[in-house]
Amino acid sequence: MITSTANAKVKRLVSLKKKKRLRDEENLFITEGIRMFREVPADRVREIYLSESFYHKEKKILGQVLGKHRVQIEILSDQVFACASDTVTPQGVLCLVKRKEYRKREIIEGDCPFLLVLDNIQDPGNLGTIVRTAEGAGVTGILLSQDCVDMYNPKTIRSTMGSVYRLPFYYSRNIVEDLEELKKTGICTYAAHLEGKKAYDEENYCGPCAFLIGNEGNGLRAEIMERAQEYIRIPMKGGVESLNAAIAASVLMFEAARQRRH
Amino acid sequence: MITSTANAKVKRLVSLKKKKRLRDEENLFITEGIRMFREVPADRVREIYLSESFYHKEKKILGQVLGKHRVQIEILSDQVFACASDTVTPQGVLCLVKRKEYRKREIIEGDCPFLLVLDNIQDPGNLGTIVRTAEGAGVTGILLSQDCVDMYNPKTIRSTMGSVYRLPFYYSRNIVEDLEELKKTGICTYAAHLEGKKAYDEENYCGPCAFLIGNEGNGLRAEIMERAQEYIRIPMKGGVESLNAAIAASVLMFEAARQRRH
Repeated sequence: MITSTANAKVKRLVSLKKKKRLRDEENLFITEGIRMFREVPADRVREIYLSESFYHKEKKILGQVLGKHRVQIEILSDQVFACASDTVTPQGVLCLVKRKEYRKREIIEGDCPFLLVLDNIQDPGNLGTIVRTAEGAGVTGILLSQDCVDMYNPKTIRSTMGSVYRLPFYYSRNIVEDLEELKKTGICTYAAHLEGKKAYDEENYCGPCAFLIGNEGNGLRAEIMERAQEYIRIPMKGGVESLNAAIAASVLMFEAARQRRH
Repeated sequence: MITSTANAKVKRLVSLKKKKRLRDEENLFITEGIRMFREVPADRVREIYLSESFYHKEKKILGQVLGKHRVQIEILSDQVFACASDTVTPQGVLCLVKRKEYRKREIIEGDCPFLLVLDNIQDPGNLGTIVRTAEGAGVTGILLSQDCVDMYNPKTIRSTMGSVYRLPFYYSRNIVEDLEELKKTGICTYAAHLEGKKAYDEENYCGPCAFLIGNEGNGLRAEIMERAQEYIRIPMKGGVESLNAAIAASVLMFEAARQRRH
């Protein structure tokens, strides 16, 4: 058991937690908590760190999750674990997980793509919630502009509740060009717009389609907005002008899910 | 202009910001930012505090918002304003607003009520987002269990984007009894449940209805859940078991809005 925060492995964990550059270099991300552990793809787990209390109470979960995969496991004293953890009340399990790289083609091509295009989403929790909701709605892939928050931000990962392991995503090098590519591939792009002629539930999303979702405060940038093929309106009552980005995305995605189910 | 944080008015502002008890006693709440100021009901504004920079750049907004209402206005130096503010980058305008008390009858009775019942919602930002979305979807009133987070929490107020001024809400003294009352009044109550027989879009929400929404981590308490008249299922793809509380509420409310519009 490791009982000192001066231990080299603990120091490395703390660096990985703080430094995006280091996580990028090692092609890893950190997941924490029992729920994220339960859903981790066993073949991508590189290292596991457990608090002493977690180990004594919950060790049988290791076999359930890992099966035959052999992974290096370290036990940390509860205090040392708290120092490595990114949460206020650590649950006592933390993994280093190998990233999965998706290619743009995998996301754009496919049977009947149902995509999200995220433009400059800044809040890690928002991004995670959008990813979780997207998987639930049956979205097949997500394109993100370069300036979106990092998908491997610890708060984003937690908010995805595991969807980050499963939903293909791709940080676009040039989102404007990629929108043109979607168009050529026959994927219809929809943007929510106050002046959209049709209400969002008057369009048909059963074919290949993509919803464009913009920044929390400013919405879609003009050059993205003008490349959307259809503007749709979310009818709103009272004094409400717009919805939160994650909420608007959810309303649109679940309308598409509803149509695709029937 | 007030230039010292030792000023009695500034000290009072700081106390109001920190102490729920004091805000309750004075029957006030604090709103910050230009957007919240633009939508404030002029007849309920008690005091206005402006930063020096805001006053010089934006003073014409005062007349636009206040019209003929006379309100006490104080100018604070930018440093003193920052100390009174609850935000990291203050916009320079802060109001004390008189609360509006709604009676339970106003919320339950009415033409064709479309209600939300919130059970133990804990996150202030979540509550604010739910209120904003509810107003947009056409919800006519919200009942909250006593243990929900405070509607007048500064973060909740900000997240409502002004809906807190307009949407009637009521903290229930006994939510279980109030659910019985809804039933007697002919309001059908729906709870999202993994084992709901019908999908959420197979029910008809055009009559008097209420959606029950539970705590972010634990969902609805058993005694609330068992009083729902109908269990509905939000069909989910992939490995997703449930949605975030605000997202689930939004999907349900906008399905009801869609039906009520057609």
